[in-house]
Order: sequence, then C-alpha cells, then structure tokens
Amino acid sequence: MERDFRQLADLYKTALLDNVLPFWEQYSIDTECGGYFTCLDRTGKVYDTDKFIWLQNRQVWTFSMLCNRLEKRSSWLDIAEHGAKFLANHGRDPEGNWYFSLNRSGQPLIQPYNIFSDCFAAMAFSQFALASGQDWAREVALQAYQNVLRRQTNPKGSYNKAYPGTRSLKGLSVPMILANLTLEMEWLLPKTTLDQVLEATVQEVMTDFLDENLLYENVAPDGSHIDCFEGRVINPGHGIEAMWFMMDIAHRSNNLNLINQCIDVVIRTLNFAWDQKYGGIYYFLDVKGHPPQQLEWDQKLWWVHVETLVALVMGYRLTGRSDCWKWYQKVHDYSWSHFADAEYGEWFGYLDRRGEVLLNLKGGKWKGCFHIPRSMYLCWQEFEALDQAEKFS
Amino acid sequence: MERDFRQLADLYKTALLDNVLPFWEQYSIDTECGGYFTCLDRTGKVYDTDKFIWLQNRQVWTFSMLCNRLEKRSSWLDIAEHGAKFLANHGRDPEGNWYFSLNRSGQPLIQPYNIFSDCFAAMAFSQFALASGQDWAREVALQAYQNVLRRQTNPKGSYNKAYPGTRSLKGLSVPMILANLTLEMEWLLPKTTLDQVLEATVQEVMTDFLDENLLYENVAPDGSHIDCFEGRVINPGHGIEAMWFMMDIAHRSNNLNLINQCIDVVIRTLNFAWDQKYGGIYYFLDVKGHPPQQLEWDQKLWWVHVETLVALVMGYRLTGRSDCWKWYQKVHDYSWSHFADAEYGEWFGYLDRRGEVLLNLKGGKWKGCFHIPRSMYLCWQEFEALDQAEKFS
Repeated sequence: MERDFRQLADLYKTALLDNVLPFWEQYSIDTECGGYFTCLDRTGKVYDTDKFIWLQNRQVWTFSMLCNRLEKRSSWLDIAEHGAKFLANHGRDPEGNWYFSLNRSGQPLIQPYNIFSDCFAAMAFSQFALASGQDWAREVALQAYQNVLRRQTNPKGSYNKAYPGTRSLKGLSVPMILANLTLEMEWLLPKTTLDQVLEATVQEVMTDFLDENLLYENVAPDGSHIDCFEGRVINPGHGIEAMWFMMDIAHRSNNLNLINQCIDVVIRTLNFAWDQKYGGIYYFLDVKGHPPQQLEWDQKLWWVHVETLVALVMGYRLTGRSDCWKWYQKVHDYSWSHFADAEYGEWFGYLDRRGEVLLNLKGGKWKGCFHIPRSMYLCWQEFEALDQAEKFS
Repeated sequence: MERDFRQLADLYKTALLDNVLPFWEQYSIDTECGGYFTCLDRTGKVYDTDKFIWLQNRQVWTFSMLCNRLEKRSSWLDIAEHGAKFLANHGRDPEGNWYFSLNRSGQPLIQPYNIFSDCFAAMAFSQFALASGQDWAREVALQAYQNVLRRQTNPKGSYNKAYPGTRSLKGLSVPMILANLTLEMEWLLPKTTLDQVLEATVQEVMTDFLDENLLYENVAPDGSHIDCFEGRVINPGHGIEAMWFMMDIAHRSNNLNLINQCIDVVIRTLNFAWDQKYGGIYYFLDVKGHPPQQLEWDQKLWWVHVETLVALVMGYRLTGRSDCWKWYQKVHDYSWSHFADAEYGEWFGYLDRRGEVLLNLKGGKWKGCFHIPRSMYLCWQEFEALDQAEKFS
C-alpha cells in the first residue's frame, strides 16, 4: 500500500458518498410506517422489519452529522427527520426512557432495559437539532442525556441480574460512551458540565479500566481486577474505539501525553489481539488465555476493524508515529480486502476467523447505518488533513 | 462403520466408565468449599471457580442416576451428596427459587432469572433422593418442581424484557423440559399429575411447535408463526432432544404412531440442519434462510450431536427404521472423530464450522458433567438392548 494521502482521502470520500450512503438511502427508508429498515441482506433486500432503537437513532445521527459537518444536503436532512419523527413518536416509554426495540409500526417490543438506547438518542437528537434548528429535537436530546447521567451507576436498573454485594463490577461502556456523547453535545451543555464529565470519564477510563496498556471490559468499582469470566474479558474493538474517543478529547487541550498514551494502548491491544494465523482482530479474548465465555470470540467484525482504522489514522495525524502507520497499513489491507463488498456495495459485518463471510448481510439487529459511514467520514477527513499538511510542509 | 451392536455397547460403556466419569471424578470435586468445579480446561485443570447452578445440579443428577440405574457405587453416591449438600445450603433465595450462579464459596452471584435452574434442581434432587433415600432431598425436589409449575407461563418473571401485548411468544424449552422432568419424577408424583402434565406437554410440543416436521423454537401462544428473528429460529439440537423425550413418553404407552412421528421430525431436522460442506449439525438456522441473529449459528456443539445419537439409536431400537440407522452412522462417525479427545479424555464442547476445536475446554459455564455421560449411558443401554434382541431373534 502506498502512502498517498490524497488517494486515501479520495478512497474514503468515494466509498462514503458513492457507495455506502446510497445503499442506505436506497434500501433503508420505510416510507410506509416511518423509521428505517436495518435488516438488509447483501443486496439491500429487507429480511426483517423490526426497528431497533440503537440503529434507528444511529441512522438519524449519521445523516444529521453529515448535514452539520459536510454539507447541508436537503435529502440528508429529510432522511434524518424521517427517522427522528418516528422515534420521537414511538421511541420512549411514559417516563421518557428509550425502548430497546419496536415493531415495524412503532409499537414497543422490548423494554428500556439499559441506557444505551438513551445514549444513542441523545447523540442523534443533538445532531438533528443542530442540523434542523428545531427546538423540540433539542429538548429530546437533553432529556435523553439526563436519563444517561441519572442511570449511569445502575445502567440496567431493575433488569440487573447481579445479586447485590457479592461481586461488584462496572463496565467500560458507560464512561467510554459518556465521554464521546458529552463531546458530541458540547453545543448544548453548560461548560461546567462538559468539563466535569469529560474529566471524570477520561480519568475513569485511563485509570480504573487500564492496566499494562490493555483496557479491561469490566473491573471492580475501585479498578481492581476480579478473576472471573467478566473480569478477564478483553474486547479489543471496544478498547481501541475508546482510545480514539480519548484522543479526540485530549486533542482539545493539546494533551500530547494523553494522546501518546492512547496510541500505546491501541498498539498494545493490536499486538495482543491480532490473529497471527489468519489476520484480523479477534472479537473477545481472555486476558489470561483461558477459553472466553463468548462463542463468537474469534470472529472478525466490521466495527472492530473500522474503529481501529479511525484510531490509527487519527493517532498518526496527531503524532506522526511510525507504529501507527505500520499498523494502519496492515489493518487497512485486511479490512478493505475482506469487509468491503465490491459487488453490491457497503461492507459485510461478520466474518469467521478465516475471513470468510459468516452472515450474508449488510444490516441486522446490531449493524446499521453508523460505524461504516462514520469511519469513512472520519478517515476521509484525517487523510485530507494529512494531505494538506504534506502540501504545506 | 460396522453394525456390531455388541461392539457399540462396549464402546459407550468403556467411554462412560473408563474415560468420562473418571475425568469428572478426578478434576471436578471442590473438596475445600463444596460443590463442583465445571470450568476445566482440556487437561482437567480448573480455570474458573464460579458455580453455575444448572451444572451443579446436573452433576448431582448424573452421579445419582448412575447409582439408581447402573450400580449403587458408594463413591458415586458420595460425589452426588457432596454437590447436593452444597446446593441445598446455598442454591436458593429466601423464597426457594434457585439462583443462576454462586461464587466458589456459595454466595449468590446471579439472581433466579429463569426457571431452568429450578428444573435441573428438581431432576437432581429427585434422583438423589431415590439414590440416597433421604427425605430432605425429596422435599427439595418437590419444592423445585412446584416452582417450575408455578412459573411456567412466565419463566423469566420480572426479568422478562418483552413489552406486554405487542408480540407474545412462547418457547419450546418449557414444555420440552417439563415433559422430561415429569417423567424423571414419576416416582414422586401422583399419577394424575403425571398423566396430566405428560399429556399436556406432548400435545403442546407436537402441535403448537411443530410445522412440516420441523420444531420451531418460539411460536405465538396459539402455535402460529411470527415472522421475526425469534419466530424464525430453528435450534436443531433442541428439536431433536425434544423428540427423544417424546419417544421416551410414547414408549410407555406403546404409541408407535407418535414414535414414528418423532423419528420423522428427527430425520427432517437432520436433512435441514446437516452441514453438507463440512459435516456436523448447525447450532441455529433461520427457517426462511435469512441470516440468523446468533453469531455462533454455524458452530458444532457437543450436546447437539450426542442428543442426536441418543434420538437415532432410540428410534432405531424402537422401530428398526433404516433411515435412523443410516443417519446414526453418519452422526456417529462425525461425533466420535471430532468431539472425543483421544489425548486427555472426555469430549470437546465447541467446534467451529469446519470441525476444529473452538474452545480448548472440557467444561465451562454451560458444559458440565451431563450431556456426555447421559448420552454415553443411554446409547450403551440402547445397544445392549439391540444386542440382546439380535441374540434372541
């Protein structure tokens, strides 16, 4: 692979604008009932019509974000509004908590059993409010954000199956996503809230969850390790995604120490989780090398790989570190040759350990219009910046 | 493979007595805290000490059952009692519901969030009460059985995440396991309860869950199909296991029609779920051929294969059908060549689609001392019966 930033910027730009977005524009809009179809087979055909709140909100986010950061295209704003209205009408229970899923017409199927639906609602409606200038959307965003803050210490509420007191664990997901979400909502939040949440979440991620440059998925409340399945599990994609969230925050204050620490974690995670035999990044690993609980541990997932591309190119742009560039090329070659579907567009989501397609789909219950377009957009912008920097150096 | 029933009986007998049971006898007993270790690596080394109630109860069942049906060996009764005492002391909440898991010393970790812990407790303590003659064990068994009956229409209780009313589904697991459990507890139950539960569960399984000789994992309360992930999923191992439970019941009343119907379902399921390319039985399939929700769908699991061996040899012994024997040989060859560990004993649990070992373990959170010894025992007995029948024919 050549180190041609212009060409790489164009690769991601073309993929985003001519391949990925058209796929979702063409196949995902439910013009009859509102919202989006996300269960799309390889060719874009709808194979299931349930509406999963994470993915509905994430598609609103994607099209709104592009309006805000790239171009105020009215067709994109229409798509975002199409989803936002469906969600505002059907997505919440009477207390304002976001359901997990709805049926096609918007009736609730699965209760609000954790806070991630609320996280993605806050992200979506924040971007949509900014793009549309509509006050009601702003209110929806702020309300969802308050849900997340309120429920962060017990994210599963009454659906928490852990017996109280025997073994307390906290998850990386909560501070990690709260950090990213808070940065996303900067324009809506008082500066004191912003600074306070960012400082606390960065501190928690980089102290409690980090040990010898690996991020643990679950630790005791004081950050110590517990020798059990949950306490031993490493989720490499999660850890790496968290690191670019942290770099994003560190960059605001030009905290180069923190940026370098994040890169160290990314590199260490890749050394730990790269499949030496077949290539690609494992989905789950046990830190002690024991059999993990997750049967899907050796599979290669789209989001793990594209979030890694974002982290590596961001790290490289911010520091010029050669280890970032070396790994970027390796992950780039694997990802583009295995996930991108040259025939029908968009990217496959799930490969087996050997890199063969495991599920012949472009979207489902967990894969929608989010990680692929977001990473295409971010990598494009990073390579534009690198190209510009090279031109003027 | 030769059709030598004597040799096959000996194969299973030797595997059970000289290979499988010694593995658990040697490595699984927690002499310090009580109960059993089930997280054993390939060689038998303990890699996690949590106590999962399903597996604790199932090991009590296995050793008690062998005392009852094979030989009153005092070392087996000691092992059963060792687990039964630990479970009786630590396994239940103040309302008598069975937890899902405990830590090594017996403190509760995961709440009683479904009824399967209670099912396996009823099975375990029924066999143990019969083996030991102890009245307290009998009481524990009956109390657990009452829990199952009481909670069968809402098995997850307050942990049920489904929004009431939008989409009602019922699962095959409940009537299937209740049928098997009730037959297990015949000696403890009034005949009216026995007849009533057996009739209702057989009826429900063979009517509501069956369609064109395939068993659906979830259907609407009236048995109709719902076109959603849960409504489309086929769990071939579950369906086949349910069929030998039904054959067991049908055989009591010499209901040859029902036995033949069960075999038809087993054969149809194998034709549907056999991996034509790499061999073995898939773990999950979507009945319409859509991508299933379960990422582990193409994996080959120990219990699926050994339950199939039991169903096929039982069907063959009861009917002499050649399709049973044809399939028995195919599944036998695959199972014995892929799952049995010639080096360290016992069987691997989890293989990838190609039949390579996916998790290098003999036990974990879901695999314990149950399906392998039960199937070894049952296949041995079936082949003994076939051998006897041949001798005297």
